[in-house]
Amino acid sequence: MLPSHPFDDDKLKEECGVFGVIGQAEAANFVALGLHALQHRGQEAGGIVSHDPEQGFNSARRFGYVRDNFTKASLMETLPGPLAIGHVRYSTAGKKGAVIRDVQPFFGEFAMGGAAIAHNGNITNAAALRKELIQHGSIFQSSSDSECIIHLMARSFQKNIPERMKDALRRVEGAFSIVAMTRTKLIGVRDALGVRPLVLGKIGDTGWALSSETCALDIIGAEFVREIEPGEMVVITAEGVESHRPFAPAKPRFCIFEHVYFSRPDSIVGGQSIYETRRQIGVELARECPVDADIVCPVPDSGTPAAIGYSQESGIPYAMGIIRNQYTGRTFIEPTESIRNMGVLLKLNVNRALIKGKRVILVDDSVVRGTTSRKIKEMILDAGAAEVHFRIASPPTMWPCFYGVDTPERDKLLAANMNEEEMRAHLGVDSLRFISLDGLYRAAGEAKGRNNDYPQYCDACFSGEYPVEPADMIAQGFEIKAAE
Amino acid sequence: MLPSHPFDDDKLKEECGVFGVIGQAEAANFVALGLHALQHRGQEAGGIVSHDPEQGFNSARRFGYVRDNFTKASLMETLPGPLAIGHVRYSTAGKKGAVIRDVQPFFGEFAMGGAAIAHNGNITNAAALRKELIQHGSIFQSSSDSECIIHLMARSFQKNIPERMKDALRRVEGAFSIVAMTRTKLIGVRDALGVRPLVLGKIGDTGWALSSETCALDIIGAEFVREIEPGEMVVITAEGVESHRPFAPAKPRFCIFEHVYFSRPDSIVGGQSIYETRRQIGVELARECPVDADIVCPVPDSGTPAAIGYSQESGIPYAMGIIRNQYTGRTFIEPTESIRNMGVLLKLNVNRALIKGKRVILVDDSVVRGTTSRKIKEMILDAGAAEVHFRIASPPTMWPCFYGVDTPERDKLLAANMNEEEMRAHLGVDSLRFISLDGLYRAAGEAKGRNNDYPQYCDACFSGEYPVEPADMIAQGFEIKAAE
Amino acid sequence: MLPSHPFDDDKLKEECGVFGVIGQAEAANFVALGLHALQHRGQEAGGIVSHDPEQGFNSARRFGYVRDNFTKASLMETLPGPLAIGHVRYSTAGKKGAVIRDVQPFFGEFAMGGAAIAHNGNITNAAALRKELIQHGSIFQSSSDSECIIHLMARSFQKNIPERMKDALRRVEGAFSIVAMTRTKLIGVRDALGVRPLVLGKIGDTGWALSSETCALDIIGAEFVREIEPGEMVVITAEGVESHRPFAPAKPRFCIFEHVYFSRPDSIVGGQSIYETRRQIGVELARECPVDADIVCPVPDSGTPAAIGYSQESGIPYAMGIIRNQYTGRTFIEPTESIRNMGVLLKLNVNRALIKGKRVILVDDSVVRGTTSRKIKEMILDAGAAEVHFRIASPPTMWPCFYGVDTPERDKLLAANMNEEEMRAHLGVDSLRFISLDGLYRAAGEAKGRNNDYPQYCDACFSGEYPVEPADMIAQGFEIKAAE
Amino acid sequence: MLPSHPFDDDKLKEECGVFGVIGQAEAANFVALGLHALQHRGQEAGGIVSHDPEQGFNSARRFGYVRDNFTKASLMETLPGPLAIGHVRYSTAGKKGAVIRDVQPFFGEFAMGGAAIAHNGNITNAAALRKELIQHGSIFQSSSDSECIIHLMARSFQKNIPERMKDALRRVEGAFSIVAMTRTKLIGVRDALGVRPLVLGKIGDTGWALSSETCALDIIGAEFVREIEPGEMVVITAEGVESHRPFAPAKPRFCIFEHVYFSRPDSIVGGQSIYETRRQIGVELARECPVDADIVCPVPDSGTPAAIGYSQESGIPYAMGIIRNQYTGRTFIEPTESIRNMGVLLKLNVNRALIKGKRVILVDDSVVRGTTSRKIKEMILDAGAAEVHFRIASPPTMWPCFYGVDTPERDKLLAANMNEEEMRAHLGVDSLRFISLDGLYRAAGEAKGRNNDYPQYCDACFSGEYPVEPADMIAQGFEIKAAE
Repeated sequence: MLPSHPFDDDKLKEECGVFGVIGQAEAANFVALGLHALQHRGQEAGGIVSHDPEQGFNSARRFGYVRDNFTKASLMETLPGPLAIGHVRYSTAGKKGAVIRDVQPFFGEFAMGGAAIAHNGNITNAAALRKELIQHGSIFQSSSDSECIIHLMARSFQKNIPERMKDALRRVEGAFSIVAMTRTKLIGVRDALGVRPLVLGKIGDTGWALSSETCALDIIGAEFVREIEPGEMVVITAEGVESHRPFAPAKPRFCIFEHVYFSRPDSIVGGQSIYETRRQIGVELARECPVDADIVCPVPDSGTPAAIGYSQESGIPYAMGIIRNQYTGRTFIEPTESIRNMGVLLKLNVNRALIKGKRVILVDDSVVRGTTSRKIKEMILDAGAAEVHFRIASPPTMWPCFYGVDTPERDKLLAANMNEEEMRAHLGVDSLRFISLDGLYRAAGEAKGRNNDYPQYCDACFSGEYPVEPADMIAQGFEIKAAE
Repeated sequence: MLPSHPFDDDKLKEECGVFGVIGQAEAANFVALGLHALQHRGQEAGGIVSHDPEQGFNSARRFGYVRDNFTKASLMETLPGPLAIGHVRYSTAGKKGAVIRDVQPFFGEFAMGGAAIAHNGNITNAAALRKELIQHGSIFQSSSDSECIIHLMARSFQKNIPERMKDALRRVEGAFSIVAMTRTKLIGVRDALGVRPLVLGKIGDTGWALSSETCALDIIGAEFVREIEPGEMVVITAEGVESHRPFAPAKPRFCIFEHVYFSRPDSIVGGQSIYETRRQIGVELARECPVDADIVCPVPDSGTPAAIGYSQESGIPYAMGIIRNQYTGRTFIEPTESIRNMGVLLKLNVNRALIKGKRVILVDDSVVRGTTSRKIKEMILDAGAAEVHFRIASPPTMWPCFYGVDTPERDKLLAANMNEEEMRAHLGVDSLRFISLDGLYRAAGEAKGRNNDYPQYCDACFSGEYPVEPADMIAQGFEIKAAE
Repeated sequence: MLPSHPFDDDKLKEECGVFGVIGQAEAANFVALGLHALQHRGQEAGGIVSHDPEQGFNSARRFGYVRDNFTKASLMETLPGPLAIGHVRYSTAGKKGAVIRDVQPFFGEFAMGGAAIAHNGNITNAAALRKELIQHGSIFQSSSDSECIIHLMARSFQKNIPERMKDALRRVEGAFSIVAMTRTKLIGVRDALGVRPLVLGKIGDTGWALSSETCALDIIGAEFVREIEPGEMVVITAEGVESHRPFAPAKPRFCIFEHVYFSRPDSIVGGQSIYETRRQIGVELARECPVDADIVCPVPDSGTPAAIGYSQESGIPYAMGIIRNQYTGRTFIEPTESIRNMGVLLKLNVNRALIKGKRVILVDDSVVRGTTSRKIKEMILDAGAAEVHFRIASPPTMWPCFYGVDTPERDKLLAANMNEEEMRAHLGVDSLRFISLDGLYRAAGEAKGRNNDYPQYCDACFSGEYPVEPADMIAQGFEIKAAE
Repeated sequence: MLPSHPFDDDKLKEECGVFGVIGQAEAANFVALGLHALQHRGQEAGGIVSHDPEQGFNSARRFGYVRDNFTKASLMETLPGPLAIGHVRYSTAGKKGAVIRDVQPFFGEFAMGGAAIAHNGNITNAAALRKELIQHGSIFQSSSDSECIIHLMARSFQKNIPERMKDALRRVEGAFSIVAMTRTKLIGVRDALGVRPLVLGKIGDTGWALSSETCALDIIGAEFVREIEPGEMVVITAEGVESHRPFAPAKPRFCIFEHVYFSRPDSIVGGQSIYETRRQIGVELARECPVDADIVCPVPDSGTPAAIGYSQESGIPYAMGIIRNQYTGRTFIEPTESIRNMGVLLKLNVNRALIKGKRVILVDDSVVRGTTSRKIKEMILDAGAAEVHFRIASPPTMWPCFYGVDTPERDKLLAANMNEEEMRAHLGVDSLRFISLDGLYRAAGEAKGRNNDYPQYCDACFSGEYPVEPADMIAQGFEIKAAE
């Protein structure tokens, strides 16, 4: 039960996970384990930079899963030392020319020594910054927006790297959770709104870890200490953790989609497991959108906790109507046209003997393009279901995200072009209902629902209210929702 | 929710899956898809043999997953023709020297043309047969017992291949479901007791498929026609399906562990889904072994259906207390001693915020060595559970299987050495209970439970009653249970 | 200066080299070195079988060069023990479907233990033997004719392996030099005519080696003891070398093309280095076919020794008019049509500043199809040569070889279809002359030239006189030269 | 017959070759062929950058031979367009951590568009430049000195790339031949002394090529136009070739070791083939250092032309006393200690039957450490030679090169520590003689020998007279020869 999904093409995707360790022998091994636990945040590629007092900085960047690369002794031996950071990145499938140069962490040699950074989020004024930097003689090695940060640091006049990073980040707009390192320091930063997550952990007596999610602390046996606060920079050395506040204060706007889909269900946010929030979404959904039926089935695996909640609140039995093939990797390609046209389902199979003749409630986490929902409906009906009712554990996804999530363009988002009844008819199901924005906020712990004057979360994908103006996108002609 | 398990080392393992197609262009592509759906029956290696009227027989055998090998156009193009069979085989990890020569299907060129066979099961008099064949000049290419069959066929005086196969199989003892092919025929056979499964499907108007399980018919859009009967041989050509009965009649003894663990939950046996049988095991278990607790959690993924049934019968809420990392492959090796010693759990993580302070019922499919159960108990207690109660969806596993399943030696089986209370103390849990053999038979559809005079299933792993005498093993000194 | 050639497509090719070692720790490492030194006899693939008293027989077979496969510690560690044999095999480029099963040595498990054999040569009645064996129940694993030998051995009633091998080889017609092994013996055999070479070497105090050529004894520091005699079988154990004579006596007919091209120039045959024989061919050629010119240039590398001899006898200066690119492997494929059409020469380049305005004698080892000679002539003229004279270090190649050499079909052999003047016109050179058969025999040490009543060598490729009737080929319709 | 050598460890090594093409469809394919012909100038790695009007800049950099990487259609298709440059680089074996980032060409995106450069030579003030650039905010991606050039270009205020390159190169000290490209221009530059070679070729009607040597023009069928002159920059577009003179005029100092060893024998310098120069060195050597003997043998392959010249001048017969194994790659590693200690010779074998009892003159191109010469002497004596006389086709190598050649440190150079007689005794041969510096100059076309006031070549490795002060090395403590 993990937040991935058999039809990955039809999901919003978190673009990155970051992890760092200081004060532990063989830190890179710990980082590899942490990245493995964060693999759901980025499956295309991963990288690790380590530092050893004698052997200096070393790095390795690879396409593919952490487990297939950063588990080989021959590679890990090239990453010695008690300090390391790492990054996993999402597969930008369809974008031409994925190149290893775009894989983080990025490294720069400055006059006072080297530094490496790994970035989760998105810089909304990167295009303007890049143009300016090139005009002044910086040479970019990647097409990544994150590389701006290291060039801004290279040009700062500050005498140490944390101060140079503050200089650089004050010029950057957008959402970011950053893990960085110098020869002796592990550094963590979250933007002023805290859109992306970042947590602090303690390893034994001497070590510290920074991670996108708590589940990656568990895998290395680290104790979860606290979340890095929005707008906070922590600088960790042998002496301990120092807290800085480099940015102007602002009210937090954590990404609510982390609750819906991105984070792993065993991660903890605000003292509650993501699993429990999702189960509670199912409870709210059962209250808001009840329907008479025989069984409640999740669309595996991301719909499972909400389906459990829906079943418990409604009293309708929970059942596994759709079975996932666990050996399906991302690489299974139907070899020939004739087979492709059969509509072969490689990843899911309907539990035909169970479904036959039943009125089925299907609980899914979200609807993006709607292509997946149509296929699943067809499978269920083909197996002889009497009725199909979709219940969606998030509000209609109507706006693209510019803060580090891969979203289709607006005209590809089903909910940006149809109302609920049109969507139901389009999908060809007996009913289709989404949880309300207020219901979602309640499940996420806001008993009174959404504060419309100043929302407690970033919910731009649902509401179109962007907490940071996406400057590059506006320059390219994107029109944000008019203030009402 | 698949019948695999995060601690694969501590499970019984099905050793093979077989699949064959006739009467379909690009038959090998269909076989690849079928094998992919049967991957849970064997993860070490796979092979396909195809036949094309112009290009003759071709074969490819590879270590690794089907999806990583038999999806490449460059390979599949070497397997043309409308007739193909395939095989997946279990990883005999720990046995020295896995070699590609041992990967099936096996092929032989006879005087009247070539034939290939793929075998699921185990020949219990293979050692004796092999010795005899070598003395008469046969040259074995593999260490596989299954190769005996093709040499026996080569030495038969019958004029056609199906008759040679009957000659050969009448000399063979043990359990077998076989898919074989000549230039024009697809052949399926089950031993007289029908220990291993084999089913027949129809593809469109002209094609036929043979498969270990029905789930592999679904993936290619084939219609499930019927099970091949115990003791039946079917010979399929362009003319249709011909049924033979080469063996003396016997009462069937299907493997009951297929219900417990081996088969995929979406496969159908006797008209009922395996999922539903397993859910029913959970219901029986809740009746036989109730306990007061706060939540019922499956050990993912194989314990899930029984946990759902237990929750439904007992009224105790179902919850996902253990989360599985879906990116864990078989290859993740902890790179260094220091990390190995931390007891890092790469595959599972406890949902700590959920478990804390709760009385937890853990439902698992079986206990083999018990090593896994101990680790899981430790994780759960470490997360702050108040009580831990194990409920096992099968009776104590006390005897090795000699019919195509990889089992530890008897002295490694926990239940062969301890009674239930000793096991509970050894595992260090608050309670431990197994379903009864009768309860299991009831869940599998035998309303009156087990017929002790002539059991309806092969349950030798639980009862020690071996329906076919394991001749080679007895020759090596194995003592079977004395008749009482 | 090695007997390979930049235009390999236009050469006769030796099909195999064999090597074996007994009485040396890590025998497989010595075999790897020996095969490396014999790589010119077969570049497609290589294999090694070793035996260790504790670990039994092990084998590895790989496509590609010895140096790229049998140099990895991870592979060589799987081939332990003091007894090993190996085989390199020629690239049957163009023949469909090279498969690893065809790579030797072949192995068979007999009632009294296992044996492996490596074969250099060709069995001229293999098709008939194969048919008979299959009818009696043998299952062939390869398409190689050599596999017949091991099946014949499996069916022999003799009590030990050397006797079984005699049984088998007495049924075999053709040319063969064989290196074989049992658990305790290294065995070498040459056919009664001794067409293919095989020599014996001594390694230190305790070890022995068998090799196709003496150059492979040099690489392991072994002392050259003697040639295995035509019709001799040697059985080597810890006790020493035992000599058998299993076949009816016959006058030897060693392959004369080994002198011309196949063997390495640093190998020794009959007490003289192949290099010296080739240089002497150049001397004879200068006497038989003088011409007025400015420089004598070899076609590298196989024409070099004869060019040196020609220069020394004629007094015309030797010069390197054609330079070979040493980084050219077999894998350089011109990537696009446009480049292919430019006639780019990837392997050779003319030394333009040297050639310009000169009358050039080009010395090559042989003319097969003539395609290469045309290209070289064009290169030389394009660089401004005044005249081009070809001198060929062998007589016209007019007949295919059936004794282990890959030759084009007769109608592809230039000399089978044209007389010398027609060939000269076809190639477009100022003169073209071949050494006479008598001249070649003189250079090879026969002072009186060829004994036409009973030739001292097999020279069927020049004379059409086949010392062993090629039964399979005749069955397929090949007409051998009528006795005159 | 190529300028490589079986004992590569004991040779000076050219560090790079460069090649560029403009005005030809699929320019990258031509560059791949050119680099293949220049492979002897660098075997570790190669890279190509291409530009296509629609697809922009693309690049590929790989470790290994050109023929193994840049021959795959799948790779070459990623390098489209009519403009491309490439680079091969020497294996810095023994230096820790060869990384793909160090492989050229280097690329930079400037305000007016991108540019790529490939550099043959060495920058003698690179360390100082690098320090300065980092202090101003440049981020280096490689450890290569050549990267300075592209950063200096990025910081130039000039409006176009050729002018920026002039700005950059005027700050650079040392030796360089550069091939560079923008979106529309191919650029070639040689330093003011012209230490490293660079030539211009014409491809058909529309295309141009720049190459380190003429042999690489031959392979693509390009016509050799002229050498780029010392201190010249050529800018080539669709309009033709424009010549610039960015540097202060100086007398040329071409590297004389290019004549001795680096360049391919079929390349042309000053109208004469390198082969002929080397043959002439042999003639001079025979005059300067005669000796009575039976045969003259080259140490293959680099000693061959001089050995031919020596034989022709002395009248002593030329013979191939040492045979090279052509299948020896750089990767053959003796797998076990026992074999390593046998002194196995994998690359060379003595022609034992020829050498026995002879007085042998061995002609080699140079003596660096002397380790090779000792081994060869042992092989020859072990084969029974009566006398061994070494004749060396260059003067004693006494000083390291700082202009793009890999040389051992001074204390490793045999001739820096011993006089001729001491070397002879150390090597254990009957005589050892080197050609004189004047003799070498005569062979290279300077009839009056070396002009000691202003030498016509850079011969610092022999004379210790460095035409460009090696600033970085002096800063590290290296003492150059005092002016006399």
